[in-house]
Amino acid sequence: MPFTDTNVSLQPALRLDGRTAVLGILGDPVAQVKAPAPLTARLQQAGLNAVLVPMHVRADDVAALLPALLTLHNLAGFIVTVPHKQRVADLLGDGLLPGAERANAANVVRRTAQGGWQGELLDGSGFVAGLRAAGFDPRGRAACIAGAGGAASAIAFALADAGARSVRVCDIDAAKAEALARQLQLHGVEASTWNGREPGEAELLVNATPVGMRADDPLPVPASALRTGLWVAEVIMAPAVTPLLQVARERGCIAHEGRHMMERQLGLMADFFAPAILAIAPERLEVAA
Amino acid sequence: MPFTDTNVSLQPALRLDGRTAVLGILGDPVAQVKAPAPLTARLQQAGLNAVLVPMHVRADDVAALLPALLTLHNLAGFIVTVPHKQRVADLLGDGLLPGAERANAANVVRRTAQGGWQGELLDGSGFVAGLRAAGFDPRGRAACIAGAGGAASAIAFALADAGARSVRVCDIDAAKAEALARQLQLHGVEASTWNGREPGEAELLVNATPVGMRADDPLPVPASALRTGLWVAEVIMAPAVTPLLQVARERGCIAHEGRHMMERQLGLMADFFAPAILAIAPERLEVAA
Repeated sequence: MPFTDTNVSLQPALRLDGRTAVLGILGDPVAQVKAPAPLTARLQQAGLNAVLVPMHVRADDVAALLPALLTLHNLAGFIVTVPHKQRVADLLGDGLLPGAERANAANVVRRTAQGGWQGELLDGSGFVAGLRAAGFDPRGRAACIAGAGGAASAIAFALADAGARSVRVCDIDAAKAEALARQLQLHGVEASTWNGREPGEAELLVNATPVGMRADDPLPVPASALRTGLWVAEVIMAPAVTPLLQVARERGCIAHEGRHMMERQLGLMADFFAPAILAIAPERLEVAA
Repeated sequence: MPFTDTNVSLQPALRLDGRTAVLGILGDPVAQVKAPAPLTARLQQAGLNAVLVPMHVRADDVAALLPALLTLHNLAGFIVTVPHKQRVADLLGDGLLPGAERANAANVVRRTAQGGWQGELLDGSGFVAGLRAAGFDPRGRAACIAGAGGAASAIAFALADAGARSVRVCDIDAAKAEALARQLQLHGVEASTWNGREPGEAELLVNATPVGMRADDPLPVPASALRTGLWVAEVIMAPAVTPLLQVARERGCIAHEGRHMMERQLGLMADFFAPAILAIAPERLEVAA
């Protein structure tokens, strides 16, 4: 089949050529990520010649990969997902913007004009935007969070910034939960560790652990914690409805899916990556009306 | 704009998700490459969940990049273009298939089941297939080639395999041309160096140098070499019609554009990458009829 015949029918609607700036999404696993198609579409609709592709990398290889990715000069940056957010933040050191530095975690990293990497964490602001859009304003509310890792830190600080009355955190690593609680207190937030069993006065319970991604995972908190009227929010995107959210619905809670956090982040990510993309691919795409 | 509204209208026709196997095209520059959209389309039409993206890397960085790319576990392989084909072949060592080993140049590299890289050179077979499709059968014909690098080697050997009567080669590096001529002789081909000025008995003249990619490049051979009836073939794909081909047409030659070689290679490349893609993304795409 000659090329000239296939060119018209096979050409994808997506722009993809030698000038396309590339973005990666680093995770382990990476098969569950949802962002490649919608973020690519969003960028291209904004006239940016860029594509987001998955990059499956193990934790042990991240340190060596970051400088190697700098040598791909048309790689504008990358999204970072589980379990690499803190590792990447550690590696970037001075290259962290305030949100990432505060939480010691990065979920977006872009190439700078100086030829280095610069990381930020958009999880928290995306999460809060998702909650608000669904009808839950954190102002004056109490929250408890399962997990004290990158996502949990980001969400805790963002809830605090949004005026939450108090934030409690728990983790299988108790010292990690205590450290995050102290960090929040230093930031002027009413914060403490949480036992992970009783939501108490909390009106919002967040699962910010990866527990629920695998079919045989236990619930991240006991079913008894899920009392009627509680907002139960996930950060996990696949499955869309985790066992936690299923049980939450059965028990009369308001189940808030993980996709909201990512959906609200797409715009934030597009804004974050735009300067790095334009430095590589300055020519604006013609966008169909 | 909520995700659920944009999902339908913005989703590209192309499949792009967390399970997508990634292919790169390594070059410096890389902006001129044409393969990303048509090869991606061809792979996806064959039911393979894969995408080809450009990767702009400098020669000095290639050695460190190859092991780093192995740590991207969903990177099925990469195409290699100017000026990296010989460097990559040097680096792969035992990982070369016969065509790449013979020419000491690789233009396609795939991940093996053992977790290494395996390289092949499809330039030559693609070039000959393109010539044949355009009506020139190399059998019994004499050819002269400008260049003695990776593309020239591949084309010289492929012309020999296709039964060419003789092959002559020239290069600004005379020792390089002599080495290639000797290599061809050892392979049982009637071969010698060429002065780069007079085609003599040749019915085919090939430009296998990058001279002609830049607007201010001189002709790779003098205009006087382009006698009426000569087939003049390019390997350069951008511009589609190089100054050499323009002058060739003016002088009554048959101008054979560089795109033919790549177009004919798309199918060969899809076949080459398919096993590595399926090892990463075994689930076949549903292909629209």
